[in-house]
Amino acid sequence: MFGLGVVSTLLAALVVQPVTALWPLPTSMSSGTEALRLAPWFSIDTSSIPNPPSDLIAAIERTKTYLFTDQLELLDIDRGASYASSIYSSPYISSLSLCLTGSEPVLSISTEAIKPLESRDDSYTLSVPTGGAPAEIKANTTLGLLRGLTTFGQMWYDYQGQTYTLMTPLTVEDSPAYPYRGFMLDTARNFFPVTEIYRMLDAMSWVKINQFHWHVVDSQSFPLVVPGFENISYYGAYTPTSVYEPTDVANVVAYAAARGIDVLVEIDTPGHTSIIWKSYPEHVACPEYTPWATYANEPPAGQLRFASPATTNFTASLLGAVASMFPSTLFSTGGDELNTNCYTNDSITQYYLNSTGETLEQALSNFTVKTHSVLEAMGKTPVVWEEMVLVHNVTLSNETIVMVWISSEDVAAVAEKGFKIVHAASNYFYLDCGGGGWVGDNPAGNSWCDPFKTWQNSYTFDPNANLTVEQQKLIMGGEHLLWTEQSSPSNLDPIVWPRAASSAELFWTGPYLTNATAGGTAETNVTTALPRLHDVAYRMVQRGIMAIPLQPMWCALRPYACDLTA
Amino acid sequence: MFGLGVVSTLLAALVVQPVTALWPLPTSMSSGTEALRLAPWFSIDTSSIPNPPSDLIAAIERTKTYLFTDQLELLDIDRGASYASSIYSSPYISSLSLCLTGSEPVLSISTEAIKPLESRDDSYTLSVPTGGAPAEIKANTTLGLLRGLTTFGQMWYDYQGQTYTLMTPLTVEDSPAYPYRGFMLDTARNFFPVTEIYRMLDAMSWVKINQFHWHVVDSQSFPLVVPGFENISYYGAYTPTSVYEPTDVANVVAYAAARGIDVLVEIDTPGHTSIIWKSYPEHVACPEYTPWATYANEPPAGQLRFASPATTNFTASLLGAVASMFPSTLFSTGGDELNTNCYTNDSITQYYLNSTGETLEQALSNFTVKTHSVLEAMGKTPVVWEEMVLVHNVTLSNETIVMVWISSEDVAAVAEKGFKIVHAASNYFYLDCGGGGWVGDNPAGNSWCDPFKTWQNSYTFDPNANLTVEQQKLIMGGEHLLWTEQSSPSNLDPIVWPRAASSAELFWTGPYLTNATAGGTAETNVTTALPRLHDVAYRMVQRGIMAIPLQPMWCALRPYACDLTA
Repeated sequence: MFGLGVVSTLLAALVVQPVTALWPLPTSMSSGTEALRLAPWFSIDTSSIPNPPSDLIAAIERTKTYLFTDQLELLDIDRGASYASSIYSSPYISSLSLCLTGSEPVLSISTEAIKPLESRDDSYTLSVPTGGAPAEIKANTTLGLLRGLTTFGQMWYDYQGQTYTLMTPLTVEDSPAYPYRGFMLDTARNFFPVTEIYRMLDAMSWVKINQFHWHVVDSQSFPLVVPGFENISYYGAYTPTSVYEPTDVANVVAYAAARGIDVLVEIDTPGHTSIIWKSYPEHVACPEYTPWATYANEPPAGQLRFASPATTNFTASLLGAVASMFPSTLFSTGGDELNTNCYTNDSITQYYLNSTGETLEQALSNFTVKTHSVLEAMGKTPVVWEEMVLVHNVTLSNETIVMVWISSEDVAAVAEKGFKIVHAASNYFYLDCGGGGWVGDNPAGNSWCDPFKTWQNSYTFDPNANLTVEQQKLIMGGEHLLWTEQSSPSNLDPIVWPRAASSAELFWTGPYLTNATAGGTAETNVTTALPRLHDVAYRMVQRGIMAIPLQPMWCALRPYACDLTA
Repeated sequence: MFGLGVVSTLLAALVVQPVTALWPLPTSMSSGTEALRLAPWFSIDTSSIPNPPSDLIAAIERTKTYLFTDQLELLDIDRGASYASSIYSSPYISSLSLCLTGSEPVLSISTEAIKPLESRDDSYTLSVPTGGAPAEIKANTTLGLLRGLTTFGQMWYDYQGQTYTLMTPLTVEDSPAYPYRGFMLDTARNFFPVTEIYRMLDAMSWVKINQFHWHVVDSQSFPLVVPGFENISYYGAYTPTSVYEPTDVANVVAYAAARGIDVLVEIDTPGHTSIIWKSYPEHVACPEYTPWATYANEPPAGQLRFASPATTNFTASLLGAVASMFPSTLFSTGGDELNTNCYTNDSITQYYLNSTGETLEQALSNFTVKTHSVLEAMGKTPVVWEEMVLVHNVTLSNETIVMVWISSEDVAAVAEKGFKIVHAASNYFYLDCGGGGWVGDNPAGNSWCDPFKTWQNSYTFDPNANLTVEQQKLIMGGEHLLWTEQSSPSNLDPIVWPRAASSAELFWTGPYLTNATAGGTAETNVTTALPRLHDVAYRMVQRGIMAIPLQPMWCALRPYACDLTA
C-alpha cells in the first residue's frame, strides 16, 4: 500500500566489500577476494631453518593459538553469513612455511630485536595462494619472520567454527618506514605490576611496535630495584611490593625481545628525581619544597645537585648500574623540565659554582657529558628530551636521539641542530591529555595539554612537516606516550588501545601511503583506516585486551555507514 | 655541613589530619579522633526488628563482608603506621544495632526503594561511640538502615590486619537534599552484559545513588526482549546473546531494589527508533535513509510514524508491555532529537496529516497523550527529555518529569513551564564527552560536546542557578550519564568512577553545605572533596571496581600537598 523507501539504502550496503584488516597496512600488497579455510590440522613449517631459535618456535605457537582462539567474526552486517557458501566450499590451507633468506648464523628474534636501532631488519614477504597450496613467509631475519606471522594472524575470521579468510590470493612485501615505533609507559606516578606490562607488550607486538620506552621512575616514586642502590626503591617505592626487582626487569626485557620489542629505559635526570632524597638526601636540592610550583612542574619538588662532583659521580654510577640491567643500545637520561629556581638558594650548588667559577649551565653540561660517557662506554646511545638541546645547549654526542615532546613545532629546531629525532609531541601523542587536570584545589579542572588527542589526530600527523628532505632523514620514528597521573591498571588498556595503534601504522606504513588494496590510488586516511582500526580493537578484545569501541557496533558492522557524509 | 631545608615541609605534613572519608558527606555530623577497632567477632544486631526482611539481612551480610575484605589502608604517608599505638591500644567494638523507628509494618528495602520518588525515606542516624559500646543506626525505614550501613562501611581502614577507625565518637544525622540521585547507562550503542550492570549497581549503592536510568534501546540496537514484541529484539539485538530477557530484567530490578535503587527504564520515542524498522517496517519512517545527517542526529535515521493511528497504538502497546516489566513508578518515553525532515516525504505520515488536517506538531502531541495515558493508567509518572516541552510543546501531565540534557542553560525555561526537573546537562554530567568524535570520515576528530567533563565541573554545579526560590522546589535532583558510542565493558568502570560520585554527593549532601567536620565553617569544595574522593576510588578498587586514580599515589597519600597553591 505504501512504499517503504529502503531500496537505495540496501543497495548502498551491498557494494561495501569486506575490509582488509591488516594493521599496520603493509607497505606493498595485493589481495584477492577468494575464500580459504584454515585446516584444523594446519601447521607452520620451519623445516628449512636449521635449529630454529626457541623464541621463534614460541612465536609460532602463539600464532597458532590465536588462529584458533581469536574466533573473531567478520565485522559485517551478518557477521559473515553472506559468505557462508564461499566459506564452506573453499579449500583448506594446511601449512605455512617459514623461510630465512639472510646470512648465517640464524639469530633469535630476541637478538635481532635489540640490535642498534638502524640495524634491525623487520622486512618480510608473505604469500597466501588460493586453492590451499602452502603459504610462505620469507625474511632475512627471525624478526622479519615474526612480523610476517603477525600479519598472517590478522587475516582470519570465524564463521560458525570455520576459520577463514576472504583475501586470497594475497602477496605482501613489507618493511617499516621508520626504525623506531614506540610506546611509552610511566610507572612512577602510579604503579603497574609486571603482568600489566606483559599484556601491554603483547598488544604492542600485534601492531608491530618495536620499542617499549619505560619511564620507570620519577619524582613521585622509584619502583626500580637497582643493584647497589637498593635503598632508593626501599625508601622510594609506593609499597614494598610495588617494585620491579632485577628478575622482573630481566623477565620484561626477555618477554619484550621475544616479541620483537626492545626496552628503552629512562632514568630522568637531573630533574624529576625528588624521591631519591629519601635515600640519598645529600644529592637532592629543594626536596619537597613549597610552594612546589616555584621549584618544579609538578609536586614534589626536588632535583639532583648536578653541580656537585659527588652527585655527578653518584648519578653516573646509578645510570651505569641501571644500564647494565637492560641490553638495549638505547638509554634515556631524560632531561626535561629542569627548574633553575631549585638551585638559587641551594648552598651546596652555590658552593660548587663559586668554587669552580662555572655557570649553572656549564655545570649541567659537564654533568651530562660525564653521565653520558659512562653509558657510551657501555655501548649505549643516549636519548634525551628536547630541552637538553633547545633550552640548555649541553654538549651531546652527535648520535644522541632527541625526543620532541613539548610541541611538534619544536621538531624543526632540533633538526636544525642535526640530532636524530623521535616524535613524541604532546599535541599529537599524549594519551593522558584531555582527561581533566589532576592538580588539587583547581575548580576549573583543566589539564595543561587539553584537549584529548584523538586517534584521528595522531594518525594524520605529518612526520616530515617543516623539515628539508635532508632533515627528514633524522626522523627515527615516533611513539604514543602514557603519563600516569590519572592512570593505573584500572584504565591502562582502554586509554591506550586502539589509539596507540594509530602511530604504529603511521610509523610502519609511513604517511600518505598509496593504498594498493584500494586500487592503487587512495591514500591512507582516517576514513579508510577506521574499519581496519575497528578490526584491531575487536581482535584485541578477543585476545583479552580491554580496547574500547570507536563507534556503536552498528557502525562497526557497516563500514562507512557512519561517516560524516554517508 | 649543609642544611637540607626540609623542616618546613615536614611540619606542613604533620598538621594534616586523617581524612573523613564518608561520601556523600552526611548533611549533619560530628566526629572525633579516637581510635576504635572492629572486633573479629563483630556482629550486626537486628533483634529489635521483628522478622527483618531478607534484603535487609543480605545488606547486613554484604556490609560485614566489606568490613573485613576492603582491607583499605589509610591514605596517609605511612598508611596508618603513625597511628599504630593508638590502634593497638584501642577498644574493640563488638556490635552495631539496627533500630527501626517508623510505623509498622516493616517493609523491605526493595519495597521502600521503588516507592514514588518523593515518598522514599532515606534518612537515618548513626552513632559510633568511643570505648567499644555498641554503635547504632536508627531509621524510619529499612531503606534508611541501608544508607546507614553504607556510611558505617566507609569508616574503616586496615592496618596490618587490624580493622580500625579514627573517627569516634561519631554521630551522624543524615538525609538527602534531593530525592533523585541517578546514573544513566546507554546499553544500545554498545551492549553491556547484565554482570556489568550488577557491578555498576553495586558501585552506585556505595555512594547512595538511588536511581538507575536505563537507556536500554535506541536506533542502533534493541536488546530488550519485550513479551509480545519479541521480534524487535530478535531482529534488533546485535547478537542473539546480546539481549536482556525478561528474567534478566527482573534480576536487575531485584538486584537494584535490594541496594536501594529504583530502575527507570527509557524507551526513547518517537525518534531514536530506527531499529524497530527491521521487525515492524510499517511503523518507521525514513529508515536508514542517507545522508543520515539530513534525517537524524546520528546514524541510522528512522523514527516512529507517530501520525499513524496504527503506529500510535503499536507504541502504546509496546510501552505498556515494557512498563509492566518494571515496577518503578517512573517511566521515560524519551522524546529527544526528533527530526522533522524524516516525515516530509513520508507518504504514510503525509496521508494521515492530510486526512485529519493536523499539523505534525499536533500529531506529536496526540501521540504523546495517548502513549502517556497508557503509562499513567498503570500508575507511572512519565519522564521526558527537554525538547518535549521546549521545542514541541506537547500536552503533558503536570506530574511529568523533564530531564534537561542539551544545556544547563535550559533549566530555567523548563521551570518557567512548571515541570519537575532532573539535571542531566551535557555540559556538566555527560561522561562520554571529550573522548574524541566517533563519526567516521572526520579528520578533526572532535566530539559535539567537548571538552571532557571533569569531576570538578560536575561537583561545583549549582542546581539552583537562575531559578527563583519557588522554582527550586521543582528540582528533583540529577544524574551523570554515559552514552556508549565509544564505551563497552572495556572502559565502563574507569569512565564512570569515581567521576559519577561527584553528582552523588552534590545531590545527596546538597550544594554549598557547611562542612561540620572541618570546623563548621568550610564549605564543601573541590579542595576538601579530593582527599575523600580518593578514598572513594581506592575503596572501589578494593571492591573490584576499576575506578581510576585522580592523582599520582604520592598525592593521594598526602592530602592537599598537590594542590595548585600548596
